[in-house]
Amino acid sequence: MNDRASESLQPAAHRRVRDATVNLAHGSGGRAMRDLIEDVFVSTFDNPTLAALEDQAVFALAELARHGDRLAFTTDSYVVDPLFFPGGDIGTLAVSGTVNDLAVCGATPLYLSCAVVIEEGLAVDILRRVAASMQRVALDAGVAIVTGDTKVVERGCADKLFINTAGIGVVRRDVSISARNARAGDVVIVNGYLGDHGAAILMARQQLALEADVESDCCPLGSLIAAMLDACPEIHCLRDATRGGVATVLNEFAQSSNVTIRLREADLPLREQVKGACEILGLDPLYLANEGKLVAVVPADAAERVLAVMRAHPAGREAAAIGRVEAGDDGLVVMQTVFGGQRIVDMLVGEQLPRIC
Amino acid sequence: MNDRASESLQPAAHRRVRDATVNLAHGSGGRAMRDLIEDVFVSTFDNPTLAALEDQAVFALAELARHGDRLAFTTDSYVVDPLFFPGGDIGTLAVSGTVNDLAVCGATPLYLSCAVVIEEGLAVDILRRVAASMQRVALDAGVAIVTGDTKVVERGCADKLFINTAGIGVVRRDVSISARNARAGDVVIVNGYLGDHGAAILMARQQLALEADVESDCCPLGSLIAAMLDACPEIHCLRDATRGGVATVLNEFAQSSNVTIRLREADLPLREQVKGACEILGLDPLYLANEGKLVAVVPADAAERVLAVMRAHPAGREAAAIGRVEAGDDGLVVMQTVFGGQRIVDMLVGEQLPRIC
Repeated sequence: MNDRASESLQPAAHRRVRDATVNLAHGSGGRAMRDLIEDVFVSTFDNPTLAALEDQAVFALAELARHGDRLAFTTDSYVVDPLFFPGGDIGTLAVSGTVNDLAVCGATPLYLSCAVVIEEGLAVDILRRVAASMQRVALDAGVAIVTGDTKVVERGCADKLFINTAGIGVVRRDVSISARNARAGDVVIVNGYLGDHGAAILMARQQLALEADVESDCCPLGSLIAAMLDACPEIHCLRDATRGGVATVLNEFAQSSNVTIRLREADLPLREQVKGACEILGLDPLYLANEGKLVAVVPADAAERVLAVMRAHPAGREAAAIGRVEAGDDGLVVMQTVFGGQRIVDMLVGEQLPRIC
Repeated sequence: MNDRASESLQPAAHRRVRDATVNLAHGSGGRAMRDLIEDVFVSTFDNPTLAALEDQAVFALAELARHGDRLAFTTDSYVVDPLFFPGGDIGTLAVSGTVNDLAVCGATPLYLSCAVVIEEGLAVDILRRVAASMQRVALDAGVAIVTGDTKVVERGCADKLFINTAGIGVVRRDVSISARNARAGDVVIVNGYLGDHGAAILMARQQLALEADVESDCCPLGSLIAAMLDACPEIHCLRDATRGGVATVLNEFAQSSNVTIRLREADLPLREQVKGACEILGLDPLYLANEGKLVAVVPADAAERVLAVMRAHPAGREAAAIGRVEAGDDGLVVMQTVFGGQRIVDMLVGEQLPRIC
């Protein structure tokens, strides 16, 4: 990791951490930290760039250029509570979220960093489980975790574990995706059921007397997006709908492109459990966080083609067209309700659910 | 930031946060978060890439290739306590540290991310001060902060503010720096007084009845290193000596290169105040953290040339040769003491000072 060490020729087994929990020495920059990093991260993420334990990962620009002509760079911190939830954990989230932020601009996600802030007293086994989750998703998404950092803070100064993943990828030559590109006539598409992640976290917190069988949709979308771009390189807008939900993404598209977006409530893909939980709690599923859902705005003549490739992909089986872009420079998102009326879908105001990701 | 928004054409003044403190809504993904980001970060970091508020920053690879042939990628989280200390704050640290991790591999630092985890209740003005510090150092170092993320956690779930900065830079064509490159005969050089950052943090915590006028050495080293590489492109090893201090870096060099490194205690540049504080507290300044100090291993015939350019640079005025690389595959660092004896300088075991950076 960013944290020096050497002797990486010795087998990982030699450097197994003996402590059951993380203590302040594991963030010291010295031997204890090196042992934790080699035991938990280097052995799990398993690549020579990380194993070299230099302070930075280095790649030939010529190699990167094989994937396209532009570098994409992004970052996200993950503070989700609880660390483990149905359908995922902070590790799956930390890799999927950053991979998706790269993929939605048309980039092939390539390399991730992993910087952890650990609360003193965290079980080392929890860290091992989280690292294993990260590596599983990284392999699935075709990315390598190549550099990192480890900090430990005193008990009570952080809540168990926070992870930051930054990511780099290379944007395909043939695409130009931007929130400013929505045009009247375009079709608005999502890749499946909305709000599963938000609902799963709500349930997992057990602060509610609700029980429902909902799993987080947390997953990397790189291969789905690649298939969509193969079918239609001229996709206009594309974003993953995380905090703030689909409503927030659509507001950003509508405002940046100076258009009106009209949704059809009847066409929104919603699980009965999520719909039910939202009704009971007074939440709007359009604002619930997702961690494996994207919103795409595509030219009308490409919509069916894009939907077809999405439905053929595991991450897009329930893909649906949910609305249209209309002329009008008001930047509004309007919902055609199932009862025939219409209402404005504004940006999220206030907080719906803290520490959702 | 990584956190959507639009309407960036409106002047920043329109989006000033009215709240005096950060609340959970500022991490929601909605309007409050967008306002905080535009007020504090977009207006301060002041560049069109960040202002576009897409989920990622994008750069032409051809532009990057003007700086060299390899991309460098690094990350560090900063959890320093206290947030403000003599000579710097968490913001100066977050930019300097990541810039330095890029510069020490021979890269020109170019772009940084900024991901904050904020404890609910933090004064917005503190965030503004920290952002201003970051931008001041970024301008000094010639980097732009181009993407980011904002999370807010409940009171008691983090200690005020943690910052992660990841960075990308491009490595010069003519250099090949690695911890494995130290050769017998090479000279070990540092760029000035050791341990100032560690000592300044110790004093700032006021847990000690010590008072001494020591400031953190926190500063970006990109231009110093560029001058060193201009003078001697074949610098063998180069690292900044942060957590774990100079002793840890030298141990890593000695072990990775399978050599012995012999230091001369009399040649170590130490301020009287730092030396005094270490004697009273039983600390070894070789293990104290620095945030603007590098350790270089250079071929003997280039040592004077390198020292001369360092001493001509503001960040290298007290540069000194502190030892030599010797044949011997023991990977040891040995100190020739002022009394004529010698002792092994091992890696840091345990924790010297938590949350130093």
